[in-house]
Amino acid sequence: MSIHSRIEAALAEAVRAAQGPAAPGRLAAALHYAVTPGGARIRPTILLSVAQACGDDRPGLADAAAAALELIHCASLAHDDLPCFDDADLRRGRPALHRAFSEAIAVLAGDSLIVLAFQTLARAARQGPERAAALAATLAGQTGMPGGICAGQGWESEDAIDLGAYHRAKTGALFVAATRMGALAAGQDPEPWDELGARIGEAFQVADDLKDALGEKSSLGKPAGQDARHGRPNAVALLGAAGAVRHLRDILAGAIASIPSCPGEAMLAEMVRRQAERLTPVVAARHGP
Amino acid sequence: MSIHSRIEAALAEAVRAAQGPAAPGRLAAALHYAVTPGGARIRPTILLSVAQACGDDRPGLADAAAAALELIHCASLAHDDLPCFDDADLRRGRPALHRAFSEAIAVLAGDSLIVLAFQTLARAARQGPERAAALAATLAGQTGMPGGICAGQGWESEDAIDLGAYHRAKTGALFVAATRMGALAAGQDPEPWDELGARIGEAFQVADDLKDALGEKSSLGKPAGQDARHGRPNAVALLGAAGAVRHLRDILAGAIASIPSCPGEAMLAEMVRRQAERLTPVVAARHGP
Repeated sequence: MSIHSRIEAALAEAVRAAQGPAAPGRLAAALHYAVTPGGARIRPTILLSVAQACGDDRPGLADAAAAALELIHCASLAHDDLPCFDDADLRRGRPALHRAFSEAIAVLAGDSLIVLAFQTLARAARQGPERAAALAATLAGQTGMPGGICAGQGWESEDAIDLGAYHRAKTGALFVAATRMGALAAGQDPEPWDELGARIGEAFQVADDLKDALGEKSSLGKPAGQDARHGRPNAVALLGAAGAVRHLRDILAGAIASIPSCPGEAMLAEMVRRQAERLTPVVAARHGP
Repeated sequence: MSIHSRIEAALAEAVRAAQGPAAPGRLAAALHYAVTPGGARIRPTILLSVAQACGDDRPGLADAAAAALELIHCASLAHDDLPCFDDADLRRGRPALHRAFSEAIAVLAGDSLIVLAFQTLARAARQGPERAAALAATLAGQTGMPGGICAGQGWESEDAIDLGAYHRAKTGALFVAATRMGALAAGQDPEPWDELGARIGEAFQVADDLKDALGEKSSLGKPAGQDARHGRPNAVALLGAAGAVRHLRDILAGAIASIPSCPGEAMLAEMVRRQAERLTPVVAARHGP
């Protein structure tokens, strides 16, 4: 089964478990809306690629980890779009969750998806309770406080922002979760995989900055110019468009160089190259060297 | 160490782990605000009482379970008070979290506390990974969809409400979590403990209805009359004040009768009686037989 099919199957199974005839209908529908059709599923793709590179001896556990990671990502989108944060009308080219349903449903859907992520890992624990616990601890660390995506969003409420901590937490944390969890699901030491996740996270941040600054609304599926509107730091404002594109390519080269020696090393380098092509937006390529 | 001291120590340790110098300061402060000084800690008290009645052979695991359950409860209060739900200004006699900080911080604090609950269980997994996974699965089931407190809150967004499902999910779920998790932490079958949790949950709901309808603002620490204001069902509206008090006493007698045969049975019955005294509000007692 392809990585793509594994991710979609694991997500569909997780969401189905949260629905059923006894559930309140609108919230159940909102969970489905928040998770499908989905974007590039880049985080779980990285997770399963690393798991495969590490031998993937417990594929059921890796699938659960991939679903859990994507559920946390979907929860973060539902909450980040709320009026008290980005107040975004659109997400992935459709009305944002709180626009399609209501603010109350969007808060509850995000909460339910966070819970569902950890429930999915707990259910998979029969395939390896120690690994499942390590996966849950890692996912929690990269999601909550003091260094996960909640902390990243929390930095936006501070008067003085620690830019490095902000980007590591807001964008980098779930990419580090992806590489660490891929290794953990396959029973390997996660630590050597940190740099790959961190580098991909940096690249993703710069790519996102480029898309936002250069106004690729169609490829974003959300309004452009949000950083300027909300006074947030942006690599294009700092380095210029051409400088930001060069910076993005350097980071991705560093990401490939950081891949630990393992049986799937070449496959993984190819995966990073494919993600790099996806990350470098068409409009940004025009600014490249 | 008393149950009270165990709960406070476990909660303080969990919150401390989510703070530290690298954390955004306002969100870190909000986590502390949301968890302390706290109410009666009734859910973790029930959890540890059941664990003790079951032998409590892994007290560290039971402490983690108690902290995790209370963190979920605190998260639910932070989110339930938001303008898109109860829009409450006060909680436990102080400004509600979103009033003391901001709506953004209240959403993030709730999210972070949910994550912290599962992180606390994952960290305790070295004391018993199978039990920790069962605890996480149970807590998730009673928190998320389709039957946990998120579902309970979700029913309020439905046109046609299933009253039984609503009360079981909104109020009952975390009490069932308390008795089940107490048994699980001590390595016992959780199923025989369901009825005790469900009965205490029903009693709590009726007591809350009485306080809300009879206007005991000082003992609520929040505004009274919220049910009427939000058009929510209330036992006093249905049975009258004297009828609701009788109903409450019947439920608590049923709760005590449901306690499974175990070494700590008498101690547990005494705990339920103490909670019953706490639950029956002064003003309601005047309406009693």
